Amino acid sequence: MGVREEARRMKAAAPRLGASSLEQRNDALARIAAGLRDAAPIIFEANRLDLAAAEEAGLPATIRKRLRYDEVKMAESQAQLEGLQGLPDPIGRVSLNRELADGLVLTRVSCPIGVIGVIFEARPDALVQVASLCVKSGNCALLKGGKETANTNRALFEVVHRAVEGAGLPAESLALAESHAEVDELLGCDGDVDLLIPRGSNAFVRYIQEHTKIPVMGHSSGVCHVYVDKDADLELACRVVVDAKTQYPAVCNAAETLLVHEGVAAEFLPMVQAALAGRGARLRGTRQVVDLTAGDGVDPAVELMGDDEFGTEYGDYVMSSRVVSGVEEAVAHVNRWGSHHTDCIVTRDDEVAEYFMQMVDSAGVYRNCSTRFADGFRYGFGAEVGISTGKLHARGPVGLEGLETYKYRLVGHGDVVADFAEGRRSFSFRDLEA
Amino acid sequence: MGVREEARRMKAAAPRLGASSLEQRNDALARIAAGLRDAAPIIFEANRLDLAAAEEAGLPATIRKRLRYDEVKMAESQAQLEGLQGLPDPIGRVSLNRELADGLVLTRVSCPIGVIGVIFEARPDALVQVASLCVKSGNCALLKGGKETANTNRALFEVVHRAVEGAGLPAESLALAESHAEVDELLGCDGDVDLLIPRGSNAFVRYIQEHTKIPVMGHSSGVCHVYVDKDADLELACRVVVDAKTQYPAVCNAAETLLVHEGVAAEFLPMVQAALAGRGARLRGTRQVVDLTAGDGVDPAVELMGDDEFGTEYGDYVMSSRVVSGVEEAVAHVNRWGSHHTDCIVTRDDEVAEYFMQMVDSAGVYRNCSTRFADGFRYGFGAEVGISTGKLHARGPVGLEGLETYKYRLVGHGDVVADFAEGRRSFSFRDLEA
Repeated sequence: MGVREEARRMKAAAPRLGASSLEQRNDALARIAAGLRDAAPIIFEANRLDLAAAEEAGLPATIRKRLRYDEVKMAESQAQLEGLQGLPDPIGRVSLNRELADGLVLTRVSCPIGVIGVIFEARPDALVQVASLCVKSGNCALLKGGKETANTNRALFEVVHRAVEGAGLPAESLALAESHAEVDELLGCDGDVDLLIPRGSNAFVRYIQEHTKIPVMGHSSGVCHVYVDKDADLELACRVVVDAKTQYPAVCNAAETLLVHEGVAAEFLPMVQAALAGRGARLRGTRQVVDLTAGDGVDPAVELMGDDEFGTEYGDYVMSSRVVSGVEEAVAHVNRWGSHHTDCIVTRDDEVAEYFMQMVDSAGVYRNCSTRFADGFRYGFGAEVGISTGKLHARGPVGLEGLETYKYRLVGHGDVVADFAEGRRSFSFRDLEA
Repeated sequence: MGVREEARRMKAAAPRLGASSLEQRNDALARIAAGLRDAAPIIFEANRLDLAAAEEAGLPATIRKRLRYDEVKMAESQAQLEGLQGLPDPIGRVSLNRELADGLVLTRVSCPIGVIGVIFEARPDALVQVASLCVKSGNCALLKGGKETANTNRALFEVVHRAVEGAGLPAESLALAESHAEVDELLGCDGDVDLLIPRGSNAFVRYIQEHTKIPVMGHSSGVCHVYVDKDADLELACRVVVDAKTQYPAVCNAAETLLVHEGVAAEFLPMVQAALAGRGARLRGTRQVVDLTAGDGVDPAVELMGDDEFGTEYGDYVMSSRVVSGVEEAVAHVNRWGSHHTDCIVTRDDEVAEYFMQMVDSAGVYRNCSTRFADGFRYGFGAEVGISTGKLHARGPVGLEGLETYKYRLVGHGDVVADFAEGRRSFSFRDLEA
């Protein structure tokens, strides 16, 4: 069956999955966890085949590492599944309950988005994570994994799908697309697929965004900033910058640019340069930064960079840097060069902090802590399908809540608009207890 | 100044407008109301020029009616402005307030979307309504009106803009684009414009959707249904169907299709046919409907229609109709042929009603009342910028709340991820009072 036909069947089954009970969906999650444990030898063997093929194909070790599904990944999957089972039902939450007029009651209630297409490169553990989030949130998931882990994906999918059917949920709740041509077919499924979630490189996400009419959740870049204000605790600032840059440089919430207030630049820049060097990271900076750090002999020296390079996402042990005249210039820089992901100010001044957090137009605005906290698990969402820098609907880490929309329910007793339009009745607008 | 340059200036000013106080924004609304009253003679004279030009250009009377801005429209604008001033601040609402770990607090707080491009055909009153909603919600608005009301738009805009400046809000909060070429320029302003709201015909909205990368809020069609169940109160059903079809047939929340349970079709169809005929409306239907109504001699007779015509939005005193075997078939029909706007079941049976409201995938699911209630004012939103059938972010009538997004604020004391990743600290996830 082709992807288009699969998507159509899913669309028809979606209301049934959305109407399933929390018990059924949690039962499916428990069955996935048990199934993964039981099938561990089969899954690990499938993964060994994929890893061997990757090595034969000459894929670099850093990429091969991401293809792995081993005991560590299995333990992570188990922990996520357990965490998800404990979370409250995201379906049916009432966010508005209003009597419009005598006996005419309007309710706004959360419900699943419907059919979600998930396209992921490498990382077979993402299959388990995303499928589990979709099951808990009552969304059908059409999964398209990378060919590098085709064997692992198939083994994992079989477990997940059997669990879903075993819990009495529709068989169409989940499907796995395997051939490469199916990506383009999936991108054309507007009308049946409600949302696409791509997980992979920037170029990959951009390709998806530019080739479909289906809404895409996610982001293609993460240029996060740390601004160290003149009233910053400089020791604390150093800790935060080092963590934000080096704790895991390859991910989108790692900081790429350091902005330093001119009043503390001479003291702070050599200090943070040395701290970063101690973790194997180096600074690039404007002429002013180069001059302020030149006399300290820290190895490596700060490399001169151009003003037009501040949009760079290194994803590596490298950081751009610049001296600014104050919080206004810092905010202007962040809003101009950032990717509206997560940006942090380090300061003891409440007023300056409030200005930064109010004026920066990003999904996350932080004070005195690392940008690396921008993550669904660390926000207490259990897990995430990704991080959204769009402003419509979900923003920031997207967990269960971001996978729900809402519908308005209105219940009356033969109420007609003509009565209101012609003055026989009038609206009262009374909010009820939710 | 071109639209692109205007949009860039707005983008830079947007954080300042977003940080303005509720008092300032309400003051601007009060100044708009007073300014409109003061400038009424100028506005009405400008409108007379537009209407005269429209008549000379041979525009039909139904369209000319929409171009009018007279005492009636002025009174509507005044009522809307007063209503808006009374609504609570949509900015700064806290929807999540969580201690992640000792002293590390995450807050999710609503904030304006940013820069909104509004493109409207005809209807100069829409300029006042949309500009007021944007002012109250703290969003910059780039307004592009139709050339048919260029004089009226200019007169209205001058009042609105003077009021906004008078209240101390940024001059860049509002701008009016006038030349036709500027529509295409506006569609290319991704990066600076966060959202487009088109208001006009289906073809117009579709054109916008297909020619921009900016998210578009709205919908291009409204095919709403009323399903009359076997346990319906047929008198009540008649009232609801007549209102849903005839109270204002030209709008998107008017019903286009009537579905009737086979158990009551023989009794109900002639009844509703006569009631609709009494309001100048006629039924089209399948062979079965034609046969069931043929013997009653109601004028006009039901016209035979093809099964492939159920996606038609008449916007007129015409209604499609079909007999179904029960609520399952009704739901399947609505999800297949509808536009996910607003759909209603008429029944006394709670279980059947719940099934319909659960399984229908629309922004509004109604029981025993007219689809015409799907409107921002009738939902108590004060006013609306439009109705959204998208599922991401806003759905249904979009008022102030739909013009806000949120950002996550995280405040710590030098907290770094490494401490959590390396087991020195752990998350506690405690929800605080909002």
